[in-house]
Amino acid sequence: MDTKPSYVVQMNGNGVHSKGLNGTGVNGKSANGQSVNGKSLNGKGFHHVNVKPSEMANNTLNPIRAIVDGMKITPNPEKPMIALSIGDPTVFGNLPTDETVLQALKDSIDSQKYNGYAPSVGYLKSRQVVANFYSCPEAPLDAEDVILTSGCSQAIDLCISVLCNPGDNILVPCPGFSLYKTLAVSMGIEVKLYNLLPEKSWEVDLQHLESLIDERTSCLIVTNPSNPCGSVFTKEHLQQILKVASKHCLPILADEIYSDMVFPGCSCPSMASLSSSVPILSCGGLAKRWLVPGWRMGWILIHDRNDIFGPEIRQGLVKLSQRILGACSIVQGALEGIFNNTPPSFYNSTISFLKSNSEICFNELSTVPGLNPVMPSGAMYLMVGIDMDHFPEFKNDVDFTERLVIDQSVFCLPASAFEYPNFFRIVVTVPEEMMVEACVRIREFCQRYYRPRSCELDQ
Amino acid sequence: MDTKPSYVVQMNGNGVHSKGLNGTGVNGKSANGQSVNGKSLNGKGFHHVNVKPSEMANNTLNPIRAIVDGMKITPNPEKPMIALSIGDPTVFGNLPTDETVLQALKDSIDSQKYNGYAPSVGYLKSRQVVANFYSCPEAPLDAEDVILTSGCSQAIDLCISVLCNPGDNILVPCPGFSLYKTLAVSMGIEVKLYNLLPEKSWEVDLQHLESLIDERTSCLIVTNPSNPCGSVFTKEHLQQILKVASKHCLPILADEIYSDMVFPGCSCPSMASLSSSVPILSCGGLAKRWLVPGWRMGWILIHDRNDIFGPEIRQGLVKLSQRILGACSIVQGALEGIFNNTPPSFYNSTISFLKSNSEICFNELSTVPGLNPVMPSGAMYLMVGIDMDHFPEFKNDVDFTERLVIDQSVFCLPASAFEYPNFFRIVVTVPEEMMVEACVRIREFCQRYYRPRSCELDQ
Repeated sequence: MDTKPSYVVQMNGNGVHSKGLNGTGVNGKSANGQSVNGKSLNGKGFHHVNVKPSEMANNTLNPIRAIVDGMKITPNPEKPMIALSIGDPTVFGNLPTDETVLQALKDSIDSQKYNGYAPSVGYLKSRQVVANFYSCPEAPLDAEDVILTSGCSQAIDLCISVLCNPGDNILVPCPGFSLYKTLAVSMGIEVKLYNLLPEKSWEVDLQHLESLIDERTSCLIVTNPSNPCGSVFTKEHLQQILKVASKHCLPILADEIYSDMVFPGCSCPSMASLSSSVPILSCGGLAKRWLVPGWRMGWILIHDRNDIFGPEIRQGLVKLSQRILGACSIVQGALEGIFNNTPPSFYNSTISFLKSNSEICFNELSTVPGLNPVMPSGAMYLMVGIDMDHFPEFKNDVDFTERLVIDQSVFCLPASAFEYPNFFRIVVTVPEEMMVEACVRIREFCQRYYRPRSCELDQ
Repeated sequence: MDTKPSYVVQMNGNGVHSKGLNGTGVNGKSANGQSVNGKSLNGKGFHHVNVKPSEMANNTLNPIRAIVDGMKITPNPEKPMIALSIGDPTVFGNLPTDETVLQALKDSIDSQKYNGYAPSVGYLKSRQVVANFYSCPEAPLDAEDVILTSGCSQAIDLCISVLCNPGDNILVPCPGFSLYKTLAVSMGIEVKLYNLLPEKSWEVDLQHLESLIDERTSCLIVTNPSNPCGSVFTKEHLQQILKVASKHCLPILADEIYSDMVFPGCSCPSMASLSSSVPILSCGGLAKRWLVPGWRMGWILIHDRNDIFGPEIRQGLVKLSQRILGACSIVQGALEGIFNNTPPSFYNSTISFLKSNSEICFNELSTVPGLNPVMPSGAMYLMVGIDMDHFPEFKNDVDFTERLVIDQSVFCLPASAFEYPNFFRIVVTVPEEMMVEACVRIREFCQRYYRPRSCELDQ
C-alpha cells in the first residue's frame, strides 16, 4: 500500500477540505505573523470598530466541518493513514475519468467557440444535449427544461431558493447530505428531518414523513441513490413517496446526482418517470458518473407536465441563475462529446468496482462483533451501525471514529455529521487492497474494545 | 464586414443573452406545445394549486433585461446589424485569448491532477499564484488572502453576502454595473446610488457620496476602471474616496475586474495599495484581461492590514464559499501557466486596440451634433451623452437607441440600464471597420433627427 498525499486526512466543500488542524488556512493568520490580533490604533475612523460578518454568513453552517474540526485526528504513526471519509472518487487515482471525457474538454478548448459568456442558464445546444440524454418516454425533456449550473450544489441552491421563503420548511432525509441544511438554514428556512429506516434498506418512514408536513412546507427533498446510505429505492417505494407529495401538493427536489450509479440487478427509475402530477426539479451533474467533481458541471431538469410550476418557477430559476451565471463555458462545450463518446464499458467498470468493494467491505464487517453494516445498492457509500452498548469505552460515534484514527489510522466519517448518531459512513471508492486492509484494522479495533452485552446489563 | 452569428442581438447574464424575442427560452413553453396552460385536472392534490416562486426569486431583477426586453429591436433589413451592446470581448472573434492561455488549460487537463474537488476557497497553490501576481509592497498578499470563485460575479456575491444584512444599505456608483443592485435587492439590502460626474471624467461626487452614508451603510462599492464609463480614477481621487471610507468606517468592495486594462500613459493603482487603514475586498478574475469571461474564474483579494475584518470576515467568506464551492478545478489548475506564460505583448496589444477603437469612436462622435461622448481611459466602454432637447422626436435614451436599431441597425445599450438616462454605452471591442461603420451610421441618424435648440425654446 503506497502512501500518496491523498492518505492525509483532507476535508473539502463536499465534506473534504485541504486543511491543517486549523481549518482551511484562510482564517487564523496568526501563525504567519502577517496580521496582528488586537486592533492596532491608526488614528483613523476604524480604530475602535471592526467589521462583523452578516447573519447569513454566521448561519452558513457545515455540520461535517463542525464535527470533524472538533475531532482529534492524530493517526497512529506506525500505520499509514487510510481515509475512508472522502466523498471524492478521484483522490486515490484508481478511478480516473475516461480518456474520451478529457478529449471532449480539449476539443472544446481547441474549437475556440466557448471562451465567451454563455447564457446564464447555459448554451441552448448544451442544454439540448442534456435533455436528450435524460429524456425518456415517461418524462420527456426539451432544452427548455434544462438549466445548467456550477455543479450540483448550485443546482440544489437554485431549487431551494426558488421554492422556499424564509419561515417555510423543507423535508430532508435523515441520514442525509448535509448541504441541504447548510443552504436552507442560511436562508432562514427550517429543516425538518424525516427518518430513513436502516432495517428496511433505508426506505423512508412514510408515516413520519407525512406527520412533518404543515402549511409552511414548501419542498420535499429526496436523495436517490442516497448519500450517505448507498441505498436505492424500489419503483414501488418511489411511488409511495410520490403519493404523499401529491396528496399534500408538495413539489419534489430530487437529488439524483448518483442516478445510474446503481449496482447490476437493481433498477433506479427517475422520480419524474413515475409521476406526471407531481412537479419535480431533478438535480444532477457530471461529478459522480463521469468522476470529475471538480469540474463543477451540474444541471436542473424541470419536470412539470401538468404545469404546476408553470412559467413562474421557470422564470424564477432563470432570474436566480443570473446572479452569478453558471458553469464554465468550456465544460458546457464538452457535454456533447462527453455524452456521445463515453463508452458504456467506462460506466460498467466503475459500477463493478464499487459493487465489488462494497461486497468486500460488507462481508468483512458483517462478521465483526458490534458492527451492523447495511449493504448498499448504488452510489459510493456504505453505512455501518455501531452497537454502542458493546463499546462502553466510547460515548458516541464521534468518539468511536476518533479513536479508530488514533489506534488504527483509519478515518471514517461519524454519521452524526449526517444527523444520524451511532453509525459511521465508509466511502467505497478506495483501492481494493486499501479497503481490505481497512476492514482488517476495523476488526482488530472492534475486537479490542468490544464488551459482551451481559457485562453491561446494569447500565 | 462579414455577418457572423454574433451580429445578431444577443443578451446574456452579463447583459447578453441568447434569445428569441421571448426571453431566454426557458419560460413560455407555449410555442412548442409541450405543456398546457391552464391547470389540467388530474384528480390529485395538485389540481387547484400551483407553486409560486420565492420572494428572493421575484426580487432578483436584472435592469438590463427589464429595459432591453421592453424594446422593439427590429433592425433595418437593408443594413447588417452592428451590436455595440455586448460586454463580451470574444463575440466578434477579433480578440482571441492568447495561445499560452489555452495551452495552460490543456496542460491542466493532461496532468489529471485537477478532476477532484478543490477546497471551497480554491487550491492553496492556485491561491498562492494569484497572491504572487497581485501582491505589491504597499499591499502584500499571501495565499490566505485569496479566495477563488466562480467568476467575478460570485466574488461580488460573496462580498456583499458577508458584509451586509437585510435592512442595511450599500453605496453603488451611478452609472454602474447592474449586478450590484440585482444581488443586493434580492437579499433585502437597500441600494443607494452615488453620482459620478461626466464633466469630471466620471469622478465620484464626493459630497453626494458622503451625504448618503448612515448607520446602516455597510459597504462602499467602487468600480475602477469603470463599467459602463471606461473611466480610470487618479491616485489622488482614489485617496479622496478612501478618506471618506475611513472617516465613516466603511469597508470597500473594490470591483477591479478591469484593473490593468488601462490605456498607456494612465496609471491605475489598486485601492488597497493606497490605504492600510481601510479594509478592502478586491474582486477580479480572468474574464477581461485574459479575454475568457465564460471560464468563470474569479477571486477575492482580502486586504486587511489593520485587522478590521479580522478572522471573522475571513471565516464568513469561507463559510459562504462552502454553499456551492467555487471555480472549475481545471481552470484553477491552469492559473500558474496563465500568469507565468502569457506574453506581455498580449496584454499590450489588447490595450492598444481598445485605445485605438475608443479614439476612433470618440473623435467621430465628438463632431456629431447633439452627442457628447466622454473619452475613456480604460476598460472597454465609452459613454455618450445625448442632448435630448435637440432630439424632440425621442422621449428618452431608450426611445433614441430603439430607433437607432430600426433606422440604422446599430444597437447600443441605453444608459437607463445603468440608472443613468440620456446616455448610451458603446462597447469598443468590435472590429475597427465595424466601429467606423457604426459611427457613420450614428452620425447619419443624428443628422436626420437633430433640431436646433432655438426651435424648441417654447417647450
